[in-house]
Amino acid sequence: MGNQVKRLAVLGSTGSIGQQTLDIVRTFPQHFQVIGLAAGANARLLAEQVQEFRPRFVFCQDRTITLPHLSEFLPMTDMACHPDVDMVVMATSGKAGLAPTLSAARAGKKIALANKESLVMAGGMVTREVRRHGARILPVDSEHSAVWQCLRGERQKPAKIILTASGGPFLHYSPEQLKAVTAAQALKHPSWHMGRKVTIDSATLMNKGLEVIEAHWLFNVPFANIKVVIHPQSIAHSMVEFTDGAVKAQLSYPDMRLPIQYALSYPQRLPNPELPHVDWGISSSLTFAPPEPDRFPCLRLAIEAGQKGGTYPTALCAADEIAVELFLAGQIGFADIAGLVAAALDEHQPVARPDLGDILAADTWARERVQQLVAKGL
Amino acid sequence: MGNQVKRLAVLGSTGSIGQQTLDIVRTFPQHFQVIGLAAGANARLLAEQVQEFRPRFVFCQDRTITLPHLSEFLPMTDMACHPDVDMVVMATSGKAGLAPTLSAARAGKKIALANKESLVMAGGMVTREVRRHGARILPVDSEHSAVWQCLRGERQKPAKIILTASGGPFLHYSPEQLKAVTAAQALKHPSWHMGRKVTIDSATLMNKGLEVIEAHWLFNVPFANIKVVIHPQSIAHSMVEFTDGAVKAQLSYPDMRLPIQYALSYPQRLPNPELPHVDWGISSSLTFAPPEPDRFPCLRLAIEAGQKGGTYPTALCAADEIAVELFLAGQIGFADIAGLVAAALDEHQPVARPDLGDILAADTWARERVQQLVAKGL
Repeated sequence: MGNQVKRLAVLGSTGSIGQQTLDIVRTFPQHFQVIGLAAGANARLLAEQVQEFRPRFVFCQDRTITLPHLSEFLPMTDMACHPDVDMVVMATSGKAGLAPTLSAARAGKKIALANKESLVMAGGMVTREVRRHGARILPVDSEHSAVWQCLRGERQKPAKIILTASGGPFLHYSPEQLKAVTAAQALKHPSWHMGRKVTIDSATLMNKGLEVIEAHWLFNVPFANIKVVIHPQSIAHSMVEFTDGAVKAQLSYPDMRLPIQYALSYPQRLPNPELPHVDWGISSSLTFAPPEPDRFPCLRLAIEAGQKGGTYPTALCAADEIAVELFLAGQIGFADIAGLVAAALDEHQPVARPDLGDILAADTWARERVQQLVAKGL
Repeated sequence: MGNQVKRLAVLGSTGSIGQQTLDIVRTFPQHFQVIGLAAGANARLLAEQVQEFRPRFVFCQDRTITLPHLSEFLPMTDMACHPDVDMVVMATSGKAGLAPTLSAARAGKKIALANKESLVMAGGMVTREVRRHGARILPVDSEHSAVWQCLRGERQKPAKIILTASGGPFLHYSPEQLKAVTAAQALKHPSWHMGRKVTIDSATLMNKGLEVIEAHWLFNVPFANIKVVIHPQSIAHSMVEFTDGAVKAQLSYPDMRLPIQYALSYPQRLPNPELPHVDWGISSSLTFAPPEPDRFPCLRLAIEAGQKGGTYPTALCAADEIAVELFLAGQIGFADIAGLVAAALDEHQPVARPDLGDILAADTWARERVQQLVAKGL
């Protein structure tokens, strides 16, 4: 790391990834400085974070929060491209991350990317802007961090990417049992503590499907060469197969602070006594099995949308976001999430090479369409 | 690889590793050329190899074999340092590999090293000569190749090396059952096809102990940071833990051609359709457990000898070589291997900073001592 302190803008600082990012900054004040904080609705927690980190730039949807002396309000897109920001941690969830990600890409920033929607909705556009402006995406998702770590120092593109999936809490449920699943059940993930949206997406395997699309864009690998395997222990975070048949895997106990820290400290690795180390003194078993797409149709829907391209992944992403909200509000059942997404994709009129306007239009259309379908009683 | 063909001297070409090295050369004639072949007693197979590969240099203990036109006899130590040799594949087993390895090191060669005895007997001397003359050791053992692949592109030394061990055919045998084991049983390894000596060493776990010493010298990691875990499936070939707690593992079905090819083609990876690729479409389970040193005392003996240093590892290696020979000849029981090695180490008068003479003297002493102990009826 040398003596240079990396100046971070943490967008989405009150969410799960945002809070864990600030934990890493607390552990390594000699390496990282927070100069920007942005959050959505949780103004109370943001105010505490602002008091603690004294960032120069703050954004909050609720503009009534009190700022300390020398802090100023700044929109997220301006914060993401500010010349004093060395790295943008994109930890917002949902489509709110897209515009700041594009802004950071166009400013040539290092982007620690936890917001998968940017790449799923607009992977072609985001990666084009990244290349054009010399920006760099440092993946924060545990799976993509694992792939990135396994590719370190390798000269060739991977022959295959193997994304592991815990399978979520309902791995062994029958289709009938799946229909009766409640939001409270779905929010109890067996191995990861995450935000509510991603926890539900993990239970439907939609999250893994979105990660396949993300991996396609991050590592420039065709969909046919990206495999998903069910690995309930969540120890092997993903794997890469090379042309000679060698496979590399990255393993660790499930703790998002590791991939966050890796993205922040890259290319260095920092010793962090607060992170768990795998205990090889106890017996353990790591299991791997192919997924069953018939019971978890969201995985197939996502991969198909990725392969079709254009605005299909945007429509998928938006339809899923609304369907998950409706499920969490108790308005639809668990199995209806996949049904609504499938219905929206069936009716979607795609744009093959979308610009930002096309993407935002597809997003709006899919959200409204899912609402309409539910209002009509599906 | 560019257009340059690597010119290889394969020492120990008729053994298991030697034959598989020639398989790789057959697959990639555009990348590798055999210009030297050397073997011990198997003159018939060596003669066939010489006819096929037409090497310029040949060595055989049996000098009656007919050489083709333009081939000449050359001692192994001369072949290992010949200016036309780009890489020496050190595939001899036992102490016969030490002198040619030192010769190759002093000539600044790339050394694809499968002969673990060189590093176990004389790790300090070999690594010193490698550093001094700009040589490079490319590990061929599957475990060390795995560690080397996991370290690729990493800037820091490993915090920990985790060597996996299949546990051999007697993993779940009681001490009484172990006493009754025959050579025929011990030669049936559950997951690897290897030479006879290393197969017996795998059954006693001595092989893993020697690999711990080898790993210590290859990767400059203290013994306290090298762990052994039992992994009967032999899919994860070893692992590296970094300071941030991340672990990387290299996985593949057990096939020595992969680590051989990796050492030969490094830094490139070559697509080889003959090598097996892990099938993620079937369910699998990888298990890991700590070893039980009480049932497999050779593992503990080897690590202790490595930690004591000096000529202890030489004495260990030599005592084991004779004890395994006696076991294979039906003259001693399976459990006597560890007993004889322990007895020899107990009586050994070590030299702390040995030169080659001290090492060869310790080797001779330990061999004779084991023979004497057996002649006296232990």
